[in-house]
Amino acid sequence: MKNKIIPLFEKCGFLICKIKNTVKILIFGTVMSANVTANQVALEPIKLSQPNIKSGKTIMECLQERRSVREFSAKDLSLEDISNLLWAANGINRADGRRTAPTARNCQEIDVYLINKDGAYLYVPVDDLLQPVYRGDLREAIGAGQNFVNAAPVILLIVGDIEKLGGDSERNKNLMWADGGIVSQNINIFCAGQNLATVTRAMMDEKVLREALKLKDSQYLLLNNPVGYKK
Amino acid sequence: MKNKIIPLFEKCGFLICKIKNTVKILIFGTVMSANVTANQVALEPIKLSQPNIKSGKTIMECLQERRSVREFSAKDLSLEDISNLLWAANGINRADGRRTAPTARNCQEIDVYLINKDGAYLYVPVDDLLQPVYRGDLREAIGAGQNFVNAAPVILLIVGDIEKLGGDSERNKNLMWADGGIVSQNINIFCAGQNLATVTRAMMDEKVLREALKLKDSQYLLLNNPVGYKK
Repeated sequence: MKNKIIPLFEKCGFLICKIKNTVKILIFGTVMSANVTANQVALEPIKLSQPNIKSGKTIMECLQERRSVREFSAKDLSLEDISNLLWAANGINRADGRRTAPTARNCQEIDVYLINKDGAYLYVPVDDLLQPVYRGDLREAIGAGQNFVNAAPVILLIVGDIEKLGGDSERNKNLMWADGGIVSQNINIFCAGQNLATVTRAMMDEKVLREALKLKDSQYLLLNNPVGYKK
Repeated sequence: MKNKIIPLFEKCGFLICKIKNTVKILIFGTVMSANVTANQVALEPIKLSQPNIKSGKTIMECLQERRSVREFSAKDLSLEDISNLLWAANGINRADGRRTAPTARNCQEIDVYLINKDGAYLYVPVDDLLQPVYRGDLREAIGAGQNFVNAAPVILLIVGDIEKLGGDSERNKNLMWADGGIVSQNINIFCAGQNLATVTRAMMDEKVLREALKLKDSQYLLLNNPVGYKK
């Protein structure tokens, strides 16, 4: 991966430099937006733990338990829960960087964002990291009127970048949606084995989310899975 | 389910009556097509066994093992293998008829066909049955030039009916492709836990398959998963 500067917090005057896959330098910039509160700088990257491969039920038990659940207890997910969940969704399971979820021609066009009450984070599998991209509660924008979504401690948002598939054709769009479904089912089956509630959803407030996450035109909001402990 | 007559073998002069979910009556009809060989009538429905819920590795082990494999041993799948595989893909896991794979608004628009050297069968989860729909080897049509597909003892073909989602809109098409991906990932993860090789594919000879399977205009060929034991 090339060295590059990711202006994640440009509105707050921060820049995060990513060198050799490690977040290393925080630089105070000069761009400051008036409508952003100062405490936005408090959102830090979250280092994930290694997935616990031995945990959970058998695949057939998980499939037996698989269902769409729209009620969540108030209990928060632990860092280990979140680490396992994200790895199950779209983690790296081989030395060559390939994933738990296949993609068309291994284009790896699918990204997973974690949304919680604090903000939004991009899951960076290669670094076992949640990279903050927005501070603020976006759960209502994900819910888009379905209030049960706000009660979920975390939501995994599945985003596809059609540019990585070779451009915006009908065929590539179909494949991208299939690849999004694949990641969503990883989440569904994982949750079924861990007493976690989840449901595959496609509704969301795309305008608010596109802006907050600073998505490129080539990125599509595909699906989302609110996740929490069962009530 | 209403009683209905399913004219599966109309070309061969057969009708199968389905009464109270059990195939009960074979009636010799009068419609005989000249271009169909007489041995087509030999393909019988296959009664599947109950899924073995305790079998297989943990979900996390399956996700660790998940990979796209394009080589198959000559070993055939047993009836138990096929029964478990189909149930994992899109079987019924609750008394209300809901499935291991969710669909948008529970429209259940996804059908799974099993293709082997003998022919093509529609998986009918409510009856634990493989209903024959075509006699003849369609594996080359699925492979569409990728020869490894012919070596797979079975191929699961994932078909979506957009009519069941409420009509042919861009939105419904996206959701249908996501739902197809979900079924395909059930297959991928199940196989990962059972020493079975598989890969999600989208290529196939649609013209040949549409005709052989007698698909309606509203049905889309989405994805396919060749499945066999690992080499």
